[in-house]
Order: sequence, then structure tokens, then C-alpha cells
Amino acid sequence: MRIQIVATGFYAPPKVETAEELGPKIGREPEWIKTRAGVAKRHIAEEPVERMAAQAVLRAMAGNGPPDLLLSAALTPRQAVPDTSVFIARELGWNGVPAYSIHATCLSFVVALRHAAAMITTGAHRRVAIVSAEVASLGRDYEQPESCALLGDGAGAAIVESTPTSKKSRLLAWVMRTYPEGAELTQIPGAGQHRHPARPGANPKDLMFTMNGPAVYKLARTHLGSLLDEAYTRAGLRGPQDIDLVIPHQASALGLASLRRLGLPEERVVNILADYGNCIAASMPMALAHAHQAGRISRGDRVLLLGTGAGLSMAAAILIW
Amino acid sequence: MRIQIVATGFYAPPKVETAEELGPKIGREPEWIKTRAGVAKRHIAEEPVERMAAQAVLRAMAGNGPPDLLLSAALTPRQAVPDTSVFIARELGWNGVPAYSIHATCLSFVVALRHAAAMITTGAHRRVAIVSAEVASLGRDYEQPESCALLGDGAGAAIVESTPTSKKSRLLAWVMRTYPEGAELTQIPGAGQHRHPARPGANPKDLMFTMNGPAVYKLARTHLGSLLDEAYTRAGLRGPQDIDLVIPHQASALGLASLRRLGLPEERVVNILADYGNCIAASMPMALAHAHQAGRISRGDRVLLLGTGAGLSMAAAILIW
Repeated sequence: MRIQIVATGFYAPPKVETAEELGPKIGREPEWIKTRAGVAKRHIAEEPVERMAAQAVLRAMAGNGPPDLLLSAALTPRQAVPDTSVFIARELGWNGVPAYSIHATCLSFVVALRHAAAMITTGAHRRVAIVSAEVASLGRDYEQPESCALLGDGAGAAIVESTPTSKKSRLLAWVMRTYPEGAELTQIPGAGQHRHPARPGANPKDLMFTMNGPAVYKLARTHLGSLLDEAYTRAGLRGPQDIDLVIPHQASALGLASLRRLGLPEERVVNILADYGNCIAASMPMALAHAHQAGRISRGDRVLLLGTGAGLSMAAAILIW
Repeated sequence: MRIQIVATGFYAPPKVETAEELGPKIGREPEWIKTRAGVAKRHIAEEPVERMAAQAVLRAMAGNGPPDLLLSAALTPRQAVPDTSVFIARELGWNGVPAYSIHATCLSFVVALRHAAAMITTGAHRRVAIVSAEVASLGRDYEQPESCALLGDGAGAAIVESTPTSKKSRLLAWVMRTYPEGAELTQIPGAGQHRHPARPGANPKDLMFTMNGPAVYKLARTHLGSLLDEAYTRAGLRGPQDIDLVIPHQASALGLASLRRLGLPEERVVNILADYGNCIAASMPMALAHAHQAGRISRGDRVLLLGTGAGLSMAAAILIW
């Protein structure tokens, strides 16, 4: 599909929490947090999630006019109803721009990118803003050091448009799969009908992240290779050697390191985990914006967006930037 | 776009609550509930939301094989993470079918329909299942008789495919707009960062629906006419006289009656409000499946899907069935 990302936006809240500060709260040494989780520091939101999102969108817009579609692609909402997109639009002062949310857990951004591409290609919209803003810290359980050491807050945005006829930018391939055998491996089990927070005896722990990291890793490892093969085939590429840069979900140090075994060496993988942690659905657009603004992506580059999300789902998108 | 709805599915939970049963709980006469809200009875879920959804999907599939994309289009989730689609896929025993959620409040189904059309048209999928299952009763506030009298539970599903070359089925037009000035007119303010249910002194009321019906009605009335005009223009139709059947969101008796002023008379409007209430995002696919199964829709008919949703958002889709 003839679409391109014309701009990206990055926002991290001002408050920083270091491994040294977090350590005592979760009963772990700072060194353990830095090496095991791979997170030296993370940002912690003290502002509303829609304000973080609006900041990322404004930075991506860089003074240009509003898009004709706003997609919120995240999983920690402002509230249940209306969906977060409405509050982002309000924060931005937009009136009449259609706004809704896509929730594909940590893969929300890459699903929203495919959605934007399809909507532009079929003539519904010309300019789509996608934003993922997450307040992961809200669901940290200090008694689960593994996930707690990973999570951070932040927002990332991208503006998508059709590609002018003289340019080569494309979405070459997109593949996604969901394996519900992993449904309970990564969860916030409350905040819905199941274990509803207003029921008698509701447990506040049900509003916190719980994750079985080793089982997620194992299930992902079983399926990621064939998912990538399908993506390369659909894109008309030979394999990982044709990828210039990988924007992975910042799942964990182990998850990022394992990309090497898929033929994607460290120097071609964007890794912002040490400074920002795993910002769930915001991780991917934050990594993208970070790499973009650092000059690591040029027009014509083949960029792979790749990740896993609670479900267990996994997805890959390949762009000619 | 050359897409068609090839099948629909309807599911209402077995437990029924009549106006006579609800009356004493909300301090209103049954007659008030029947005439003011327009709801004689509604169904109340005692089963998990993903099981309701799976039932609607199975009825739509009617023994055919699974689709290659599953969309959950609703706003009362099973839990925060993973999104509800994963649990629906698990309930159906599917493995590998990509699954995610679209949350556009009461308009989730019509947005998902546009998404399915775009994904099929751009070659990502061949057969998409959309399902909206809602447990609105979970958020009923007996001290808010107006909204409490309206809400009900249920599920509706549709299977979308591309149109064979010999057939005329099309998605002719799709328009959506969001006016965030209405963000606080219909709300469940809890279950997210804002008024988080685990904060000290959390109010269980924050997990319930609150609605300013007259203000929603007024804001909708201001914008619906021009939205519809744009939809007719994009569809190449003259106006409401070219519409054979309207599938509206079952917002309220007043909302449904007001369609007459937009040139859409009662006999062409599907109204299941009296028997099922307002099942939020499930209302539209339930009304669609109900009309479809009652033989009210034939191939070639021009069908208008129309609704408002918390936001305030509004959307219209016009199909040649």
C-alpha cells in the first residue's frame, strides 16, 4: 500500500524513577533491575494520559493542521466510556475529527498503522494521526518485581499519509496472529465483567499487571519465526538481511536480545528499554520516534515493526520508509 | 467498496427483566419505563461476555469455517488486558486467527464494519467476523432511572466478505464525526487513570453509566442532518427517500422517533428497543441480525446504519445489501 509515515512524535513525562529509587520498593537490588529487566530508569506520569497523548501528537504535527482521523492505540484508558481518543481530541481542541480507539494490547500501534493504511488506501481519509499513550505505572504490583521492574510511562505518535506518486514509500507487508492459549500469561484481570472492581470483596490486585515472562517468551519463540517468514514473503524480501532497521516492542531485555537468533543483530534493532522501560503499546511508536529523530531512518529504508502482545498475539509490519 | 455482509448472528441471554420487575428498583412505575424509555423488557447477562459473543458468532457462522480476522467491537470488556477479542477466540477454540478490539463506544460495530471493508479491500483478509457483546447491566445505577431504564445486555455478529464479481453488494459510504464538547454527557468515568478504582476513597458509582440524555439529544440533533447529507452525497443517493431500511443504534425511544424528522419514517426503521433495550455497541448488530433473520433485508436493498455514541460521536454507513 502506498502510504508513508510523514512525522513522528515522542513524549516522556518529566518525572523519572531510577533503578536505585525503585529497588527498595520491590525488594530487589538496582543491579538486578538494570541487568535482569534491562531498565536503568523509567518515566512516571503525573499528568492525565490524554495530555501525554496530545503532547506526542503536537510534536508530530510540528505546526501543521489537524488530521482527518485520530486513532488512540493503547490499553491503559483514561476511563471506560468514552474511549480515550475523545479526550485526546478535546485536549487538542479538535471538533468534528472522527476519533476512536484500537486495542490490540501491546500491538495496538502496529494494528492502528495497518488500519490507517487501509483507510487511506480506500479513500476514507487523507491524513491519520495515531497515538499510543500509556500509564503503565498505574498497574504496577510491587510484589511482582519482574513486571514492576519493566514498566514505564510515555507516549508516541505518528502521522500517516498517502505516498506521492514520485516516491517509493510503502507498507509492504503486515501479518498478525493470536494464540489464546496465552490469554492468562499477561493480564490485568479486573476493570471489566470478570472480577469487576465494584463486586463485594474486590481485590485491588486485579487492577495490576501480572505476567508470566518465561511462558510468554516460550510461546513467542514457538511462533515468531514463521510469522517473520510470512512477512518477508509477502514483502517480497529474502529475509532479515533485507531489513535496515527493526522497531521492536520494548518487551524485555531478554525479548530484545532474542531477535539476534532471528537474524536481526543488535546494531539494527532500536532499543530504548534502558531509559524508558516497557511502555506497553506506547513502546513501539516511542522507539520509532526516537530512532526517527536520531536520524537512524532515511527514506527508502526497509523498516520492520515487530512485537508480541498479551493474548498472546504477535504482529509484524514491513515498511519502505 | 465491494464487500457484503454474508451472515448475521443474534444472541440474547436467557434471563429477562420486565419493566414490572425493574420499576421498584429504580422508583418508577412500569408504565413510565415502557413509555418514557420505550423498554418493556431487557435481557440480563449471567454468563461471561465472551460466551455471549461466541454464541452470536457461532450463529452467524452457521457451521461454516472460521474467518481470518476476529474483531470485538464493544465497550464493556471482560477485563482490561488482554482485550476481549482474545477471550472470544478462546471460547471459539480458534488458534492463530488475529483478534483485536475496536472501541468507538456505541459506534464500535459500524467502525469495525468500515475497518473490515478496508482490510478486505486492501487484501489483508478474506472473511472477517465482527462481534459486539455488551453487559450494560453491570454499570446500571439504580439512582439514575433514565439510563437504568434503557440498558440491556446482548450480542450481535456479522460476517463480512468481498462481493463476487456478479453481485452488486457494496459499502457505498461511511462518515463519522466526533465532538468532544460532549465528552462528559455519557460516561463511565472510572475503570481507567481518571478516578482509578484502586485509589483511596474510590466511588463505586464511577463504574456506572451516567448520561445527560437531553443534552446528548440536542447535540446529536445539531449535527446529524449534515452528517446524513454527506453520507447520501458520498453514496450517490438523492436522500432518505433512497434508503430501504435503517438500522439505528437503539439509543432511546426519543432518539428513534426523531429519525422521522430526518425523512426516515417508522416503517423503514428497525426498532427492537421495547424487547431488548439499549445494548450499547451491541444494539446495532442485534437490530441488523434481527431484521435480517425476520426477512426484512434483501440483496440489493439500500441499508443505512446510523448512530450516535459517547464522545459525542456520530456515524453513518450506507450499504447495498
